[in-house]
Amino acid sequence: MKLIEKHRSYQGYQEVYQHTSRITNCDMKFALYKPDQFIDAPVLYFLSGITCTEQNFIQKSGFQQFASKYQIAVVVPDTSPRGQNVPDNEDYKLGCGAGFYVNATQAPWSTNYNMYDYVTIELPEIITDNFRFSQNQIGIFGHSMGGGGAIQCGLKNNLYKSLSAISPICSLNKSMFAKEMSSYYLNNDEKLLNLYDPLTLIKQHSKKFHDIKIDVGVNDEFLNDLFIDDFILACEEKKQKISVNKHEGYDHGYYFIHSIIKDHIEYHAKILNNI
Amino acid sequence: MKLIEKHRSYQGYQEVYQHTSRITNCDMKFALYKPDQFIDAPVLYFLSGITCTEQNFIQKSGFQQFASKYQIAVVVPDTSPRGQNVPDNEDYKLGCGAGFYVNATQAPWSTNYNMYDYVTIELPEIITDNFRFSQNQIGIFGHSMGGGGAIQCGLKNNLYKSLSAISPICSLNKSMFAKEMSSYYLNNDEKLLNLYDPLTLIKQHSKKFHDIKIDVGVNDEFLNDLFIDDFILACEEKKQKISVNKHEGYDHGYYFIHSIIKDHIEYHAKILNNI
Repeated sequence: MKLIEKHRSYQGYQEVYQHTSRITNCDMKFALYKPDQFIDAPVLYFLSGITCTEQNFIQKSGFQQFASKYQIAVVVPDTSPRGQNVPDNEDYKLGCGAGFYVNATQAPWSTNYNMYDYVTIELPEIITDNFRFSQNQIGIFGHSMGGGGAIQCGLKNNLYKSLSAISPICSLNKSMFAKEMSSYYLNNDEKLLNLYDPLTLIKQHSKKFHDIKIDVGVNDEFLNDLFIDDFILACEEKKQKISVNKHEGYDHGYYFIHSIIKDHIEYHAKILNNI
Repeated sequence: MKLIEKHRSYQGYQEVYQHTSRITNCDMKFALYKPDQFIDAPVLYFLSGITCTEQNFIQKSGFQQFASKYQIAVVVPDTSPRGQNVPDNEDYKLGCGAGFYVNATQAPWSTNYNMYDYVTIELPEIITDNFRFSQNQIGIFGHSMGGGGAIQCGLKNNLYKSLSAISPICSLNKSMFAKEMSSYYLNNDEKLLNLYDPLTLIKQHSKKFHDIKIDVGVNDEFLNDLFIDDFILACEEKKQKISVNKHEGYDHGYYFIHSIIKDHIEYHAKILNNI
């Protein structure tokens, strides 16, 4: 594992690491915000949206101000495998930048596009092995594709104690964002797709969070492809508490994320720091 | 003038405009943060550093959080003329992205590279003519090349009531950053260069600010090319109050800017809002 960036940011350091992944079979980068009081600090994973690398969230969201205040470590993986030997596609919803946090089953994608295992198994192992953060006060959140990713990872893994999402894609079956990836990565197999589908999983899984916090902009240009209202209904049916705030005027982009990042970091801090 | 971007950001809108400039003889873009309470709002100009466009500061600094809190309009010009007919150079310290807020006197640069007049004359006129902000509560600040730019614009123009700078280039005569531009834009004419040189101007000009606030990172990779200590000495000789904070660990980049942006916006807000 190689440290490739390190910048002082508020009361901590914004770092970027590179390592060879056994699961995606290529070199991967991830970003880590390391607060000065890092021993036993809670760890919060952020999953980014389509087209993002590990850079977008760390450059544009301003989360460091609040991760510093609450002294929380924040891990930001890339959104897909990348490199000369990694298959790609011109469609922005497929290939590099669009790993969708699933394990692909079809060649040639299945060799590298295993972002579900990368994010939920390999990356947490790397963090545990290399840093002295808390090993049980761990949360997850994300945006858009990564918002849906955070929900599906959160529901299936006891690792995560807190869960929130910003403008999440809640249905892989219905959203136009996931059509190509389902076809190319999973051979359009609905059973496979449902393993990663927030709307299906919330109906099936017994794991409960104290709350699931979701924020979305009312002027989100992709609002009709997120299916958040369907997810709210499914949560209510399963008696899973869900707190959704719809924000007048805001769109799908990083100006919205920055405007509400304080609320999300504080939400996780309260749960993970037992405040 | 054409609105080309508009995003809700905190309690305001982050906008980007495009217009044809009579001074740079090309299409120019500038960014504007427009707080919801914009009538008679103070206006703060931010001048960016080398390689930046109007986008870097608005995407990476997080200033909107505090411009929103104090309901200040913030104008961010591009750092140079751009376009098919605008001369450029492969050196990042020259041509597009490196206008240095001077008026070039040598062909072919002199046709377009007149960023001093653009920033201090044409852009303020555009803002006055198109928006109902305050016409006298106006401040200026900037980063690196733009930090030096803010100082020289501030010292020569009564328009600006408040002045601060982040990691500013304080000497155009001594800094390696300005060598090429001086040669290409100004024919190495020291008299012309001194018209834009913070260190020369502070010794010559009688205009006083209540204070000049400067922040810089101790681990700034370009610290030796900023000549901030020379500027401090010159200010002290001229009895110009200057408040410089040197921050252990921080470098020259946007993670530093984000970490101290609150202090700069609050500094200007106090002066411009008469708090």
